[in-house]
Amino acid sequence: MIKMGVFLYINKPKYLACFLQLLLAFGKKGVILLSNINSLFNAKSVAILGASTNPKKLGHVIFKNIIEGGYSGKVYPVSKKGGHCLGYEIYTSLKEIKESPELLVVVVPSNQVVQAIEEAGECGVKAAIIISGGFRESNNEELEKSLLETAKKHLIRILGPNCQGLTYTPNDLCASWPIINKKGNIAIISQSGTVAAEIGLQAVKDGLGVSGIVSLGNKSDVGELDLIEFFNEDANTRSIALYIEGVSGGEGFIEVVKKTNPHKPVIILKPGRTKEAQKASMSHTKSIAGKSEVFDGLCKQYGFVNVKNVTELYDYSKGFSCLKKVGGKNVLIVTSSGGSGILATDECSEAGLNLMSLQQEIEEKIKAGLGQHCSVKNPIDLTGDATAAIYEQVVKDSAEDPNVDIILVIFGDPLEDVGNAMIRLDQKIKDKLVICFLGGGELQEIETHKMHGAGIPVFPSPERAVSFIKKLVEYSEFYRG
Amino acid sequence: MIKMGVFLYINKPKYLACFLQLLLAFGKKGVILLSNINSLFNAKSVAILGASTNPKKLGHVIFKNIIEGGYSGKVYPVSKKGGHCLGYEIYTSLKEIKESPELLVVVVPSNQVVQAIEEAGECGVKAAIIISGGFRESNNEELEKSLLETAKKHLIRILGPNCQGLTYTPNDLCASWPIINKKGNIAIISQSGTVAAEIGLQAVKDGLGVSGIVSLGNKSDVGELDLIEFFNEDANTRSIALYIEGVSGGEGFIEVVKKTNPHKPVIILKPGRTKEAQKASMSHTKSIAGKSEVFDGLCKQYGFVNVKNVTELYDYSKGFSCLKKVGGKNVLIVTSSGGSGILATDECSEAGLNLMSLQQEIEEKIKAGLGQHCSVKNPIDLTGDATAAIYEQVVKDSAEDPNVDIILVIFGDPLEDVGNAMIRLDQKIKDKLVICFLGGGELQEIETHKMHGAGIPVFPSPERAVSFIKKLVEYSEFYRG
Repeated sequence: MIKMGVFLYINKPKYLACFLQLLLAFGKKGVILLSNINSLFNAKSVAILGASTNPKKLGHVIFKNIIEGGYSGKVYPVSKKGGHCLGYEIYTSLKEIKESPELLVVVVPSNQVVQAIEEAGECGVKAAIIISGGFRESNNEELEKSLLETAKKHLIRILGPNCQGLTYTPNDLCASWPIINKKGNIAIISQSGTVAAEIGLQAVKDGLGVSGIVSLGNKSDVGELDLIEFFNEDANTRSIALYIEGVSGGEGFIEVVKKTNPHKPVIILKPGRTKEAQKASMSHTKSIAGKSEVFDGLCKQYGFVNVKNVTELYDYSKGFSCLKKVGGKNVLIVTSSGGSGILATDECSEAGLNLMSLQQEIEEKIKAGLGQHCSVKNPIDLTGDATAAIYEQVVKDSAEDPNVDIILVIFGDPLEDVGNAMIRLDQKIKDKLVICFLGGGELQEIETHKMHGAGIPVFPSPERAVSFIKKLVEYSEFYRG
Repeated sequence: MIKMGVFLYINKPKYLACFLQLLLAFGKKGVILLSNINSLFNAKSVAILGASTNPKKLGHVIFKNIIEGGYSGKVYPVSKKGGHCLGYEIYTSLKEIKESPELLVVVVPSNQVVQAIEEAGECGVKAAIIISGGFRESNNEELEKSLLETAKKHLIRILGPNCQGLTYTPNDLCASWPIINKKGNIAIISQSGTVAAEIGLQAVKDGLGVSGIVSLGNKSDVGELDLIEFFNEDANTRSIALYIEGVSGGEGFIEVVKKTNPHKPVIILKPGRTKEAQKASMSHTKSIAGKSEVFDGLCKQYGFVNVKNVTELYDYSKGFSCLKKVGGKNVLIVTSSGGSGILATDECSEAGLNLMSLQQEIEEKIKAGLGQHCSVKNPIDLTGDATAAIYEQVVKDSAEDPNVDIILVIFGDPLEDVGNAMIRLDQKIKDKLVICFLGGGELQEIETHKMHGAGIPVFPSPERAVSFIKKLVEYSEFYRG
C-alpha cells in the first residue's frame, strides 16, 4: 500500500517538500510512475493492440472511436493479422512501430496480455489500458498478479484489466465505447462500464459533456484514489462522479478524502446496501462491499456526496459541476406552471428547505409588473402569460432580497429564449439559480443546452431539481461549517 | 351532484337498464349531454374561436396544431378580424358557418366567452373547450357561473375554462399545445397543462404515444370523474395518468372508483402533501386539497396507484399500459452489466421483492450455454459477451421455471437487435418482462422504441425499473386478492 500513498502525495504541487523527500528515498522510479499516470490521459501517441478490421469486434470499435473522437496524436493499430483498417496500415507487432507509443490499449485475449505488456515495456510504453477480461474476475488471480508484476518491472501504469477504457476530452481521446467526445466539466470514474457510459451519454445529450470517463475494471494498479487525485487537480473538471463496488484500502481512502478537503464535489454511488447485492458484487468485481453504514458515515464525515442510484449520480454530478455552494436554505420558486410550482413546494417542504417570503417592497415591485391573475406569493406563478422577459425581470427583482439563497425557476411550457434571459443575469444571481424545465418539447432541449453551456443546471422535473437543491444545501453547510 | 352521478352511470353500456330508467326520468336532455361529452373527443368538425394569424398567439398555435395534427374532420377558424390563415379563410363569426360545428375551441378574452357560448348554442355546437382564463382562478366566480349556466341552457358540455385543451389521437385531434399526435395507449387527465404536456411528450419521445390528453382547467363542468369513465370505456386506452389538485366531490370519486373496479390502472399524482403546497394549490386552481392521508387511504382501498412525483406518474403510466398483472413477487434479473445488476439487486431487496433462485436443472442448462466467467446465480450476469441471441435463449430458459413471476432484463451497452429478440418471445414470457436499458446511446433509443411498440415496458435505470415492478406487484396482489 505504500506505493499508493506515495503517489497520492506527490501528485499535488503543494506537497513539493514531501515530493523531494520521496525523490531522495525512492529515486527516479517514483517520479516516472507518477508521470505515467498522466500518460493515461495526456498521451501524445496511442497503440491499439488487437485492432480489428471486423466492425463487430471491440478492437475495431475502440480504434474507430479514437480516430472519430478527434484524437490528434499518433495512432498505431496493431494486430498480428496485419492488413489495413480505416485508412491505417495495421502493424503486425508492437516492435514494428519505430517510435515509442506513450499509451497502449490492449484488446487481445487474456492469455496474450502479459506477453504484450512485456513487449510494451521493451518498446518504452508508459501506460496501458487493459480492456481484456479473464483475470481476477474469472478467478485467474495468478494471471493478474503476473500482469501487475510485469507492468511494475517496466514502470508501466495499468488501467484495468477487465475495463471499458478511458475517455479524456481535453486530449480528444476516446479509448472506450460508446464514443463520447463532447468537452465538459464532469469526470466519471466507474467500476461499471455501463454506469460510466450512461452518465456520460446523459451529459452529452443534455449539452453538458464530460472532462473524462474512466472505467476502473479490476483496479489491479490504478484505482479510484489515484483518479480522484488526478481529477481534483484537473482544471477541466468541476465535479467527480464515482461508481464503486468496493474501496481500495479504507485507510487510503480516508487519507485522500482528508487531503483533498475542501475538494471538488465527489458524488459516490456505491451499491451493496443489502446482503443480496453484496453477494452479487463479489461475483462481479470480487469487491468486498464492506458495511454500508461505515461507508455512509465516512462520506458524511468528510463531505462526500453519497447517492443511492444512477439518476441521483447523474443529477448531482450535473448540478455540482455548475454550483458548489449556496448561502443557506431559503428557496424562492418562480414558475409559469402552477401545478409544477405546487409539486416543487411539496418537495421543498419535505426536504426541510425554507420556502421564504420576499420582502414586502420587493413583492410589491414584482406584483406591479404582472397581470392580476398572477400570484406573487412563493411560489410566484407567472401563469401561461410568462415570457423570457418577464422571467428575467422577476428573477432580477427577487434576487434583490438578500435573504434569497436559491431561486428555483420552473419553465413549464415551450418557452422561447428563456435560456438567454437566464444567461444575461449577473453572475451573482446565476450562482443562485437552479432551473427546472418540463413540458417544453424541442424548445426545452434547445434552451436547456444553452443554459448548460453557461453553467446553469437544468433538471427535467420538480422532484429532481429539489432533490439536488437539498444536497447542495447540505454540502454548502458542510463546507461553511 | 346528481347530474354527475347520472351521467357516470349511463356512460357504461352495462348500465343499460339504469340508462333507460334515467331516460324516462330526465328525458332527452340527459342523453344529449351524455353524447356531448363524446363530442369533445370524437367531434367530426371543429371551430376555433379566436384563431389568429399571429404565430405567437395561442389562437394560432391551436389552430395550427389541429391541422398539423392530422385532423380529418372539418375545421373552421373564426375571428372577428377575418382574413386568411394556413390556407383557410377565417370566418368573422360563428353564425357565418353554414353547418353546425360539433366542437368549439374558445381562445378569446374571458369577457367574450359567455357571449360566444350563447352563439355556439344557437349554432348547434355540442361541446366546447374553453382555453381562456380569467374565471374562478382570477376570483371571477360570477363569470364562471354565468358561463356554466349558458352552457347548460344550450346543453353544451364544457372542458375548462382556463385549460390547455384536449388531444385525442384516435380522432387525430390535437386542440392543445405542444402538438402531440402519436397514437398510443396512455390517457392523461391533468389539472396542470404542463404536467400533461410533459407526460405526453415523454411518451412520444419513448415511442409509446398517447390515446388522449385532457387538461382539466377549472373543471367547471367536465371533471376527472367523467374523463376516467370515458377512458375506462375507451378501447384505445390501457392506463390512465391523472394529475389533480383537488377531487370533484369525494363521494362521487368513491362511487366511480367502486363501479370501475377492477378497472384500468389509474395512476394519480395529487400534490398537497404539505401545508405550503395546499396553500399554493388554493391560489392555482382554487382546489381544496383535502387531507393527504384520507386520499392515500382511498387509493389504497380501491386499488388506485398513488404516486409522489412526475417521474413516477410517467413511469407507472408507461409500465401499466404494457403490463397489468403478474403472478407474484419472484424476480429474476438477467443483465450484461454486472454493476447495473447489483444496483437492481439492492433496489429489489429494499422493495421487498424476492430475488429467487432458479431450479437447479434450469440453472445448469443456462450455465452450459454461457462462458465460464458468466454468473448464473440471480442476477444472471451475461457480461460484455452478451448478444441478442444469448439474451433470448437465457430468458426463454429462465421462463421455464414456473416460480419466475417477473424477469428484469437489463441491457447495459449499445446492444444490437435486442428489441426483436424480446419481441420474438412467446406472449406468456413477454407478460413477465420488464426491461431496463442504459448506457446504450442511439441503439438504446432504437431498441426501446421497438419494444414499446410491442407493449414491453423499458425503463432507463435500474431504480426506475424496480420502482415500477414494486407497484406492479402491489397492484397485482390487490386485484388477485
